[in-house]
Amino acid sequence: MVALPELPTPALVLSLEVLERNLATMSAARPGSRLRPHVKAHKCLGIARRQVEAGHHSFTCATPLEVVGMARAGVGSDLLLANETVDSHRLAAMAAAERESGITVTVAVDSTVTVDLAAAAGLRHVLIDVNVGLPRCGCAPEEARSLAERAQAAGLTVRGVMGYEGHLMTVPEEDKPRKVKACMSSLVEAFDSLVDVTGEECRIISAGGTGTYHVFDNDDPVLGRINEVQAGSYALMDSSYGAQPLPFEQALYVVGTAVSTTSRDSGSWAVIDVGLKSLGMDHGNPYIDEATVWFCSDEHTTFSMNDGSLPAIGERVAVRPAHIDPTIALHADIHVVPRWGEEVTEVWPVELRHW
Amino acid sequence: MVALPELPTPALVLSLEVLERNLATMSAARPGSRLRPHVKAHKCLGIARRQVEAGHHSFTCATPLEVVGMARAGVGSDLLLANETVDSHRLAAMAAAERESGITVTVAVDSTVTVDLAAAAGLRHVLIDVNVGLPRCGCAPEEARSLAERAQAAGLTVRGVMGYEGHLMTVPEEDKPRKVKACMSSLVEAFDSLVDVTGEECRIISAGGTGTYHVFDNDDPVLGRINEVQAGSYALMDSSYGAQPLPFEQALYVVGTAVSTTSRDSGSWAVIDVGLKSLGMDHGNPYIDEATVWFCSDEHTTFSMNDGSLPAIGERVAVRPAHIDPTIALHADIHVVPRWGEEVTEVWPVELRHW
Repeated sequence: MVALPELPTPALVLSLEVLERNLATMSAARPGSRLRPHVKAHKCLGIARRQVEAGHHSFTCATPLEVVGMARAGVGSDLLLANETVDSHRLAAMAAAERESGITVTVAVDSTVTVDLAAAAGLRHVLIDVNVGLPRCGCAPEEARSLAERAQAAGLTVRGVMGYEGHLMTVPEEDKPRKVKACMSSLVEAFDSLVDVTGEECRIISAGGTGTYHVFDNDDPVLGRINEVQAGSYALMDSSYGAQPLPFEQALYVVGTAVSTTSRDSGSWAVIDVGLKSLGMDHGNPYIDEATVWFCSDEHTTFSMNDGSLPAIGERVAVRPAHIDPTIALHADIHVVPRWGEEVTEVWPVELRHW
Repeated sequence: MVALPELPTPALVLSLEVLERNLATMSAARPGSRLRPHVKAHKCLGIARRQVEAGHHSFTCATPLEVVGMARAGVGSDLLLANETVDSHRLAAMAAAERESGITVTVAVDSTVTVDLAAAAGLRHVLIDVNVGLPRCGCAPEEARSLAERAQAAGLTVRGVMGYEGHLMTVPEEDKPRKVKACMSSLVEAFDSLVDVTGEECRIISAGGTGTYHVFDNDDPVLGRINEVQAGSYALMDSSYGAQPLPFEQALYVVGTAVSTTSRDSGSWAVIDVGLKSLGMDHGNPYIDEATVWFCSDEHTTFSMNDGSLPAIGERVAVRPAHIDPTIALHADIHVVPRWGEEVTEVWPVELRHW
């Protein structure tokens, strides 16, 4: 047990109570296999195990290391690498992890090269990754069938399709269902174009994220066809998703220590030991409650309290990251408190960092 | 020996030839103790050892872990923690590292709290950190003497003063000497105000960085008094410093692999496996030669070649980070090539990550 004032900083601190509440909210909305939690957001087996306890057994991974790490730890029973890789050694490592663990490993493919490399590496299952509007990976919907045929011919089982409407995660709520539906129409069409190639093992239509998980209305002829959602950030949240009307709370902060304060007639500021090297900065500056963040440096954030007060030197300050995924990637451990205000009872390593 | 096309990506790749040229250029301008290279930029003992070979024995560190790591490895003979810390365990760890290694450890202090904690932890040397205009750490110049007196009374040796004009690193060249001189006037005054407190061991006036190292003209009555510069980025460079007229070259790229390409009438793009989790993003998007970067995702960068061509899937692509320091903090290793185009001959761990 470590009291927060004794914790070396900067440190990731997680409220187990809030985590469990976020997991319960999501698993009520999308129980079991209807959610394929994305481990890229947390890269932490301790959190993935809680997602298993919440009823989810299929997981989404962003890197081969995440797949291999989950398989070796025996977390989940169905792992999807939702990105393409052309690294033969890593493809083979995932195939070996599948054989050794008995856990199903599926990889996304979007080109003849990725299909052929997956087959050559001894992998057995693929999803056809379809571009649904975000200019990133994924084949054109009309190419999905020919890729499925090539995969089938190479001995791979095509389990279905996936598409990520990442460009729609933060559009206004009133526009979201319509815009997501337009993307999903092409994904569903791609699925329908190839389902006869592979038969009954072809069942998955995978899409979505924390910003869109709630629009996949079961009664809609298109949106209801999406049978799994790849949400990850919902478990921990960040200021970017927190600005949206989502029923999840911030479960993880970066805790820092005030190391320097300056009081001047022209203005006062404080400096904590949380900076660029402990925060993902692609979504901009982090937030501090009741304070204004001035700027971040490598190891520091300079801020002022809105009421003109200053923290005492040595006082702990909680920072809400703008983007949780790259924030966690900078840390080796997550410090777990049962609930806010209590002592650290567990340390969960961020085992799935790197690639 | 690993050929670049066999290297697992994303990977940091360093040209030893360019590194050595950057080090030689800097050590010609500021030889020996006139440079106190900042290890925070690279966090890598392999690079610090090359800086020792270039004639520098005093180093600047940003975190206690950097100080302890350098001391335990026996790199350098004079280590400065140029930030304040109020973590008693880490202060004690630095004091122990000093005793065990015989390497001098000095810490920055800017308040009575930091002075008292340094003394209590068994540290022996401090620099008074003076605020010279950047709203971050550092005492007011007029407080420097009383802090020196307190340090002296607590048994600490005050070795001098430091101040970081970080807000001036990228101002236009024509304004730089004048603006830096204005900041340094207050630092020199602070030094002169306290030099009699501590006597002959008080000699250091430390400041500067890669963006200002060249303005500390020896013949200037103020700028010539700065007897050591804390530059770090010069060794490796990034696009932010690269935009300035500095005589250093990019020595380190993040190398990725093209994993997906899309060709459409409306435009073509490629995706590489270098994203937010392998790039510091606080200075914005990275650069790719002869290409336009569209955006970065967690594990991807989407870009288009300016000539309309597309890389082959599997082709390696070199990415120039916008900010080198937080980029390196995301990686476990640096892959060293003797010169661009050659095979990887060494792997240098980034030993000094975290805090």
